[in-house]
Amino acid sequence: MNKTYDAIVIGGGVAGYYCARALRQGGQSVALIEKNSLGGTSLISGALPVKKILDSFKNNKGNKEEIRKSLLDTWDKNLKELSKRIINNLMDLGIDIYYGNGEFLDSKTYEINEDILNTQYFVIATGTEAASTPNFVIDNKNIITHKEAIDIKKLPGKIAILGGNVEGVEFAALYAEMGVDVVLIEMENNILFENDRDLVEPIENYLKSLGVMMITGVRAKEAEINKDSLTIILENGQKISCDKALTTFLRKPNFPKGIENTKIKVDKKKVLVDENLETHEKGIFAIGDINGVLGMGHVAIRQGLAVANQILNKPKINLDYNLLPRAVFTIPEMAGVGSQEWELINGNIPYKVGKSLFQKTWRGWANESKGFVKVLLGKNNDLLGIWMVGENVSEYIGLLGMVIKEKRTADDLISNLIIHPSLSEAIFEAAIQAKKKVIK
Amino acid sequence: MNKTYDAIVIGGGVAGYYCARALRQGGQSVALIEKNSLGGTSLISGALPVKKILDSFKNNKGNKEEIRKSLLDTWDKNLKELSKRIINNLMDLGIDIYYGNGEFLDSKTYEINEDILNTQYFVIATGTEAASTPNFVIDNKNIITHKEAIDIKKLPGKIAILGGNVEGVEFAALYAEMGVDVVLIEMENNILFENDRDLVEPIENYLKSLGVMMITGVRAKEAEINKDSLTIILENGQKISCDKALTTFLRKPNFPKGIENTKIKVDKKKVLVDENLETHEKGIFAIGDINGVLGMGHVAIRQGLAVANQILNKPKINLDYNLLPRAVFTIPEMAGVGSQEWELINGNIPYKVGKSLFQKTWRGWANESKGFVKVLLGKNNDLLGIWMVGENVSEYIGLLGMVIKEKRTADDLISNLIIHPSLSEAIFEAAIQAKKKVIK
Repeated sequence: MNKTYDAIVIGGGVAGYYCARALRQGGQSVALIEKNSLGGTSLISGALPVKKILDSFKNNKGNKEEIRKSLLDTWDKNLKELSKRIINNLMDLGIDIYYGNGEFLDSKTYEINEDILNTQYFVIATGTEAASTPNFVIDNKNIITHKEAIDIKKLPGKIAILGGNVEGVEFAALYAEMGVDVVLIEMENNILFENDRDLVEPIENYLKSLGVMMITGVRAKEAEINKDSLTIILENGQKISCDKALTTFLRKPNFPKGIENTKIKVDKKKVLVDENLETHEKGIFAIGDINGVLGMGHVAIRQGLAVANQILNKPKINLDYNLLPRAVFTIPEMAGVGSQEWELINGNIPYKVGKSLFQKTWRGWANESKGFVKVLLGKNNDLLGIWMVGENVSEYIGLLGMVIKEKRTADDLISNLIIHPSLSEAIFEAAIQAKKKVIK
Repeated sequence: MNKTYDAIVIGGGVAGYYCARALRQGGQSVALIEKNSLGGTSLISGALPVKKILDSFKNNKGNKEEIRKSLLDTWDKNLKELSKRIINNLMDLGIDIYYGNGEFLDSKTYEINEDILNTQYFVIATGTEAASTPNFVIDNKNIITHKEAIDIKKLPGKIAILGGNVEGVEFAALYAEMGVDVVLIEMENNILFENDRDLVEPIENYLKSLGVMMITGVRAKEAEINKDSLTIILENGQKISCDKALTTFLRKPNFPKGIENTKIKVDKKKVLVDENLETHEKGIFAIGDINGVLGMGHVAIRQGLAVANQILNKPKINLDYNLLPRAVFTIPEMAGVGSQEWELINGNIPYKVGKSLFQKTWRGWANESKGFVKVLLGKNNDLLGIWMVGENVSEYIGLLGMVIKEKRTADDLISNLIIHPSLSEAIFEAAIQAKKKVIK
């Protein structure tokens, strides 16, 4: 059948979901194409389920066996409901969803199954997927990706996690909380290596307390797959036998089929876009992981909304990636916005730092809260970064990006009123500490 | 003995504590005068212990009996430690603490016990205390104040709480969580009456779920004290028999003795100060509840720091009370900054409102989080207020005052990146909802 839409969004992960929704709410007729299941890595096969599981352990201090049982008992139901919620949200708005693997016929036409869809605008939001390396070939059975790993109904006795990045660390936490024997392997000298050591240390201690074995500073060389087991061989000769290995270190782009029928340009890793997220083909945009700008859910969401605004001729949304907040959803969490120390050192930017334990606030003392706040100031006491480690800190960051964006100073922060008694008072204390210091 | 200090702070509640600490850290010799116990209403005999107890119930979803037992078992120890912490913090800095009820001899001299203290600067931080009304005379046994009420080792079977203000509501929650039969009496038609109804409703539901009986729209007329019991008689004739009544509706100033020997002026309720918090006597300041500006802990703290900066000749701290964040520490909590709807209506300020349930965020959905965010925008989509109800929202407000102060708009907020998945994404959704609306 031949159908015409105002806009067609290819890929139903968070980028595509939010873009399609905004376009539809703006009055456009919208088709959404999905080859597997709506929700993508962020909502279905990774981020959100991982957070849900870790939040369960965080929010219930009781018996771990009970939490595990309850998670396993409700897993299928929860996933089904999540999936239904995503589909219903889109269908209720009147978005047509097409399942399958279609292709571009030209810059205005897309073919999927038996249908020919015509449109003025395409938005490519096809994302990336975990990729094999020559020595670690994903077979979805022994060498697995987050898609298999997130199915907690198939827990192995022992898992090796290849890569101590955010994904690897969060899965290490999740598996260890679920009672699995975990070995986390990172070729850099530290896990979460592009982060300040003091922010990572509490997470390392947490993983240790769960019994996670961390091997850092050595590369995983290859996998030896036997009938009943798997051995990961490290470059130093060490052998780790395990039931499964989760690979997190490489992703490859999901290019949509038929882009050769358009003027879209790509390189090995991404669809090329300009600063408006438009490809070389006018009227075709690329958002989320597929454009290679930054592989993070909140970036994908905002890019989806920014492109929708452009198509709808609404005011432009300028995304400032420098102020990207980031979080690691372990227990404690790490979260923050702006620069960390290592970035300022690398960029040769003079800075001073103040730290305050949550314990030093009255509420934190009363509740025995763990963790701390770190405030980074520039030469003129301008706020360069605010970072935290603690139980719920991914929620404390909120709109802090706006504060840093406006080039506010330590004095602005100090004259601002913070609720008392609250843990947030540690931000204030850290700012005072930092302000006192002198940059040599 | 005759002693000379750079500054003398009278009153060791939070205002005095923070002021004395900042002065000492700035190199001054400091004496602190306290007539009862350091910490005052905010840290010792009210706010902080109330929050600690309610946080215990919030953070432990287990058996309430166990939580109660653990709170009772550790109560004396905790209070002692809190007290020790306050004293040690001050002593470690080298602040001289004088206990007792001294008096001004003149504008530079203070007598306490056997000592005559001389100084350039005085800071009065003597606070207020609960006051009797003609029909409700505090006897600290039948008719009690927060000072007695906070001692959870002496729980009555049934308590009447007079006043559905923040203090009354938080104590109602605390007592009900501890298993006490609670009747909360408020003469206005609603509890927490100077707040938007939608923000208060979840707190009302919480109190109801704990079995708190709320009587609103009727004034408590008098108390009939019998040998073994107490009856509160309402203006409509209704009689409430109970073991104790907690009065929260009146406070009186603790004027320091000897102010008639200075040029300080007072009215019935407060020590009069100028915009720099200086009294009519040059070199004598008044901070915290005693100056009647705003009876809140975080205001007191900031005033203490602001005055310390003035005495130390440091940059002036300008406090903008319009941006005062406020919180009610029940379960759920209510918290926010800027204006609420009722204030905008009263002020005849055109506004529009957007609301988003935490449930509507992916993380909130996954974790079954309750509560919502409310964003208030002005004619030009300028942010007028951000308010929340939910489990931990007193921590989510953080530095939001700075965002509102800078006259940021909904578009600034929408282009700001918020961590995904997080409950804070509801702020973003609420801002989008509000922006769509048109002010008639």
